[in-house]
Amino acid sequence: MAKVKVGIIGSRFEADIHAASFQLMPEEAEVVAVASPTPGNALALAARYGIPRVFKDYREMLAEPDIEMVTITAPNRLHHQMTLDIARAGKHVVCEKPLCMTLEEADEMIEVCRSQGVLLFYAEELFFTPKYVKAKEMADHGAFGKIYLVKQSEKHFGPHSDWFWDVNQSGGGVLMDMGCHSIAFCYWFLGRAAIKSVYANLGTYVHAAKTKGEDDSLCIIEFESGAVGMAENSWARRGGMDDRIEVYGEGGVTYANLHMGNALPTYSEYGYGYAVEKAPTTKGWTYPVFEELWNYGFPQEMRHFARCIRGLETPDATGEDGRLVLEVIYAAYAAAGLGRKIEFPYRPAGIAKPIDLWRKP
Amino acid sequence: MAKVKVGIIGSRFEADIHAASFQLMPEEAEVVAVASPTPGNALALAARYGIPRVFKDYREMLAEPDIEMVTITAPNRLHHQMTLDIARAGKHVVCEKPLCMTLEEADEMIEVCRSQGVLLFYAEELFFTPKYVKAKEMADHGAFGKIYLVKQSEKHFGPHSDWFWDVNQSGGGVLMDMGCHSIAFCYWFLGRAAIKSVYANLGTYVHAAKTKGEDDSLCIIEFESGAVGMAENSWARRGGMDDRIEVYGEGGVTYANLHMGNALPTYSEYGYGYAVEKAPTTKGWTYPVFEELWNYGFPQEMRHFARCIRGLETPDATGEDGRLVLEVIYAAYAAAGLGRKIEFPYRPAGIAKPIDLWRKP
Amino acid sequence: MAKVKVGIIGSRFEADIHAASFQLMPEEAEVVAVASPTPGNALALAARYGIPRVFKDYREMLAEPDIEMVTITAPNRLHHQMTLDIARAGKHVVCEKPLCMTLEEADEMIEVCRSQGVLLFYAEELFFTPKYVKAKEMADHGAFGKIYLVKQSEKHFGPHSDWFWDVNQSGGGVLMDMGCHSIAFCYWFLGRAAIKSVYANLGTYVHAAKTKGEDDSLCIIEFESGAVGMAENSWARRGGMDDRIEVYGEGGVTYANLHMGNALPTYSEYGYGYAVEKAPTTKGWTYPVFEELWNYGFPQEMRHFARCIRGLETPDATGEDGRLVLEVIYAAYAAAGLGRKIEFPYRPAGIAKPIDLWRKP
Amino acid sequence: MAKVKVGIIGSRFEADIHAASFQLMPEEAEVVAVASPTPGNALALAARYGIPRVFKDYREMLAEPDIEMVTITAPNRLHHQMTLDIARAGKHVVCEKPLCMTLEEADEMIEVCRSQGVLLFYAEELFFTPKYVKAKEMADHGAFGKIYLVKQSEKHFGPHSDWFWDVNQSGGGVLMDMGCHSIAFCYWFLGRAAIKSVYANLGTYVHAAKTKGEDDSLCIIEFESGAVGMAENSWARRGGMDDRIEVYGEGGVTYANLHMGNALPTYSEYGYGYAVEKAPTTKGWTYPVFEELWNYGFPQEMRHFARCIRGLETPDATGEDGRLVLEVIYAAYAAAGLGRKIEFPYRPAGIAKPIDLWRKP
Repeated sequence: MAKVKVGIIGSRFEADIHAASFQLMPEEAEVVAVASPTPGNALALAARYGIPRVFKDYREMLAEPDIEMVTITAPNRLHHQMTLDIARAGKHVVCEKPLCMTLEEADEMIEVCRSQGVLLFYAEELFFTPKYVKAKEMADHGAFGKIYLVKQSEKHFGPHSDWFWDVNQSGGGVLMDMGCHSIAFCYWFLGRAAIKSVYANLGTYVHAAKTKGEDDSLCIIEFESGAVGMAENSWARRGGMDDRIEVYGEGGVTYANLHMGNALPTYSEYGYGYAVEKAPTTKGWTYPVFEELWNYGFPQEMRHFARCIRGLETPDATGEDGRLVLEVIYAAYAAAGLGRKIEFPYRPAGIAKPIDLWRKP
Repeated sequence: MAKVKVGIIGSRFEADIHAASFQLMPEEAEVVAVASPTPGNALALAARYGIPRVFKDYREMLAEPDIEMVTITAPNRLHHQMTLDIARAGKHVVCEKPLCMTLEEADEMIEVCRSQGVLLFYAEELFFTPKYVKAKEMADHGAFGKIYLVKQSEKHFGPHSDWFWDVNQSGGGVLMDMGCHSIAFCYWFLGRAAIKSVYANLGTYVHAAKTKGEDDSLCIIEFESGAVGMAENSWARRGGMDDRIEVYGEGGVTYANLHMGNALPTYSEYGYGYAVEKAPTTKGWTYPVFEELWNYGFPQEMRHFARCIRGLETPDATGEDGRLVLEVIYAAYAAAGLGRKIEFPYRPAGIAKPIDLWRKP
Repeated sequence: MAKVKVGIIGSRFEADIHAASFQLMPEEAEVVAVASPTPGNALALAARYGIPRVFKDYREMLAEPDIEMVTITAPNRLHHQMTLDIARAGKHVVCEKPLCMTLEEADEMIEVCRSQGVLLFYAEELFFTPKYVKAKEMADHGAFGKIYLVKQSEKHFGPHSDWFWDVNQSGGGVLMDMGCHSIAFCYWFLGRAAIKSVYANLGTYVHAAKTKGEDDSLCIIEFESGAVGMAENSWARRGGMDDRIEVYGEGGVTYANLHMGNALPTYSEYGYGYAVEKAPTTKGWTYPVFEELWNYGFPQEMRHFARCIRGLETPDATGEDGRLVLEVIYAAYAAAGLGRKIEFPYRPAGIAKPIDLWRKP
Repeated sequence: MAKVKVGIIGSRFEADIHAASFQLMPEEAEVVAVASPTPGNALALAARYGIPRVFKDYREMLAEPDIEMVTITAPNRLHHQMTLDIARAGKHVVCEKPLCMTLEEADEMIEVCRSQGVLLFYAEELFFTPKYVKAKEMADHGAFGKIYLVKQSEKHFGPHSDWFWDVNQSGGGVLMDMGCHSIAFCYWFLGRAAIKSVYANLGTYVHAAKTKGEDDSLCIIEFESGAVGMAENSWARRGGMDDRIEVYGEGGVTYANLHMGNALPTYSEYGYGYAVEKAPTTKGWTYPVFEELWNYGFPQEMRHFARCIRGLETPDATGEDGRLVLEVIYAAYAAAGLGRKIEFPYRPAGIAKPIDLWRKP
């Protein structure tokens, strides 16, 4: 299989994850370019990963004929335009979560990619997380009988980049940033079951001084099948990253924890290089994990995308998934604002950004 | 301190817990009588715990002058009448959870005890669970800064006695049976904070063939202070009892698990006597716990009640707590039925039993 | 049962544990006196626990006619003389571990107590540790079939008081201080099985600047029955106290961990009052435990001793146990010094202190 | 890098691991042949993994000119001859553990490979186990300060194939079969530190009816540096595979558990496909792991070997490592037989198989 050549838009935390992930799966793809308006960062990323071409304007990168796939790690409000530009340049798109700011944007992104004959991938790595994939395999084997409840939780103490905290750039707070993971996971785990209703409880409990976005969210999703999904997300959980699921069925239950449940509980008087994403320190007791990117599923996700481009696999984690997640996010913000569950389908038009459904119900 | 003489109404699972708990705290109280209409059970309990007097009709037991405190472990629908009878007999009342079937009953129970000059205790052992008390101590020390989220979960695969499954006798399903624990816990942990609203998602996922009650419940409680409590309860969780909390604050987080987090993970080819409440077997891998009653807080609870009677302690876990919990349960059923959160105060009158607010909103 | 009146010799860490333990079991005994040559400490302990009589010289305390039991928490080298004095004063003895410095001392302590008609208790709380007692119950139920290996480990980063580090006062390092626990546990768990041989590997790895004693020890005990016990002890394990066992049998296995396996994993930015014995801090991630003294078994141990004095129980944890442990310790030091296992019986005479068998084999 | 073509000798459990591992790392190598005298097994393996060429006699496979590397998964007593044959056929050797039966064999294997100009790899996957590699990285970062104790434990309830249980074919029991892993690990973790002495305690506790080999072993290795390694291995541990390490240093400690510490604790009434190596069942509570082969390090190990052949990496896990491990195993059996530690170097000649040093000291 000829390697898929990749360009990355962005140069911060998520771009670094992408670059590192491609490096872990070098057979299917290679990153040949990075584009970022902040030149210093782009050069640093390029140096770190041996990326030969650096651009300031991503549209120049789109002109490179050999690049086949472009990943977007820029702020949420830019996902839409970038996707359109990438598609019109004849390249496949990997769009980071959340897909974009509005359902109209999502529709257009999907349509333009379709008409341009390129694939629109939604970078939801939880579909590839090895430990969670194992849970799904057991479920598919009937380990739990009929599943009635899936819980997914991703929490830390707040994102790295400034734009997350500005809801005009991000579209919302933690529900937008991390709830999308949990929502996607519950949906995917239950076989992309049809959604019946959404309820959410949101609040800004800890970071009110720096954001208008919610920093903790609880979201309950009812599925037509009768099952329930629960997304628990936070920017207000101290101590490092935490990512876990629980699956309940008539026949059983499983717990999968990517951090405290995978770690090497460690005490160090002196500290050491790196423990885990968002860990405040490596001194004292810590929960360092191993093969962090691999155990999140990032390299496997990128490999999958490249293999889809070569026709070797069928896309799992698509723009349609991303749009569905955005519909749930819309409904969740609305539910929180109105104090009642929102029945599906729920497609209000003319919403500037999802959080407006909460702050101005 | 002269021992408080106690009579127990009931002879099944919960009565056994009471008898065993008093036996673990023999200095403050002693069980001298048990009353149960099912004579065989009462005699068996009496034999097991050396209880000298056995009655078929509890009202006969109430005539015993030396008995000072009576515990009620009978079906929920009988709590009200029994409490009134006990109070009018001049004896203190320990009423098991949930307090009763309706807010009117609760009001009357509280008033009659008050006017009779007896104490009405609400048997919520989670206020005495050593591991949870430790969490509260750390919280009170400022370990977590301002707390914004408390989660409590109690789950197993369904109760022992038939009456639980008949909502006319129980008043509701798992929310009524176990949600009361979780709700009480969140309320108590946050310092008996004023409640703002309640939302719940309920369903009968696994046991529809044997009950009209919900067998899994998620309940979100908003407090006036801005904090949130989450009660997660189930009669549909296989594998033995599970009881756990999570506490999140601006300054930290703690996890306390009474079962998998306290157990001796054990593999046995042959099995052994007893692992844990509701465990299906003792063969293969199990999570046996130690000092089960003590680690739930039952003996400490009973000791507290006895010492209150002697004026040595101030009541913690009162009929007022039980009524507050019932208000939340009412609101939760209503919220589930209406699909919207219910603002406090919420005191609908003329409700026959709490689950009616869900099934017939 | 009339309360047994107790006097404590000592005023440091272990004396505090004793006083606190008696306070948790106030029905069987009460501490009425404390004796310590360091007057400040004794007064502080007395104030902390409401102990009415304070002595500088313990022999004056022995003159108090109402005191029935005296506990020794003084340095190891004083256990012998104190035991004799207590016994000759007609009082029962609770001697902290390790029993004493030499087998000759042990023999005399046992004999004098016997001839004086007083009980000699050996304060090995691991015989009462609730979680370990549960393991033994499962074993006795046949959960594991025939047991072939018992491992016990107690580790921290070094004791509080100076005298531990001076082998002339303590008799040895961590094997003496904590190996006695592990050795006693394996012996007791296997039903006080006859010992066949002992091997040990000792070293001073971390604290060579402050002690000649070993700070980490591995001790393998072969029993006549064919089973093996392993004692793993350390004064060189950072991060707080660690106490755990593993039990292996033909039919199964169990793991019981008193700390990381019982704790509330907690992150605190600010810290809180107390986490666990020897914990360096309460900030960052910690493993606070709950009901620490209770979960080690200290109150239960003291209650047992008091009840034995009243003839209500038969002594478990006696001077004979302590002497057996000392024989194993002798053999372990010798084995480490000679580099070969030592067959039982092994009773070298004229040894000034156990560690001499290692340092001057 | 041109793929290295590989032939596998053997068709049972270990051969399956090899084939599956190469399949997970398809870029560096591919398995093109399998040889096994038991034709049915070889065909089954070939079918399962798409291996095109099947041989009954491995020497015929050695005649295939395109094969560059041959892995040996045959019984221990055949490792020596096979290695010589493979080397003389000009192919690189991957020899499974333990290296062979005697030090003489080891010397000859190393020498013949050297003179033939082929690489002799020792298939010790623990050098590649991701979680353990993380521990080593932290150690190399100074997380633990100076390390004084490394413990490695691999345990299950007994191997698959009959020849393991026949010491004439295997050379010894669990110390030979699994102690080699633990010994290698401690040695490697401490930077291939020089060994000072070895002690071991061995016994046949559970499987005496089917083997003369030891089924549980404790082995203490003293290093010249002062550090200690402990290898704890068992064929008598029920409940599935267990693999774990502990690392202690002046500055800290870490615990890494590949099974209970990585698993998804799961209850299943019905069971599911596969939990973990040696798991007796998938019903009830189990500890299924994910990406089992990857998390043991098998694919990474094979990839490393292939890349070494291409000169892209320097061999880590060599025949010299295997011989050193065998020296320790010799010394351990001798120590167990003599009841004393054995000082290094220890190279007794004319030993037919390692266990003879124990059974006939």
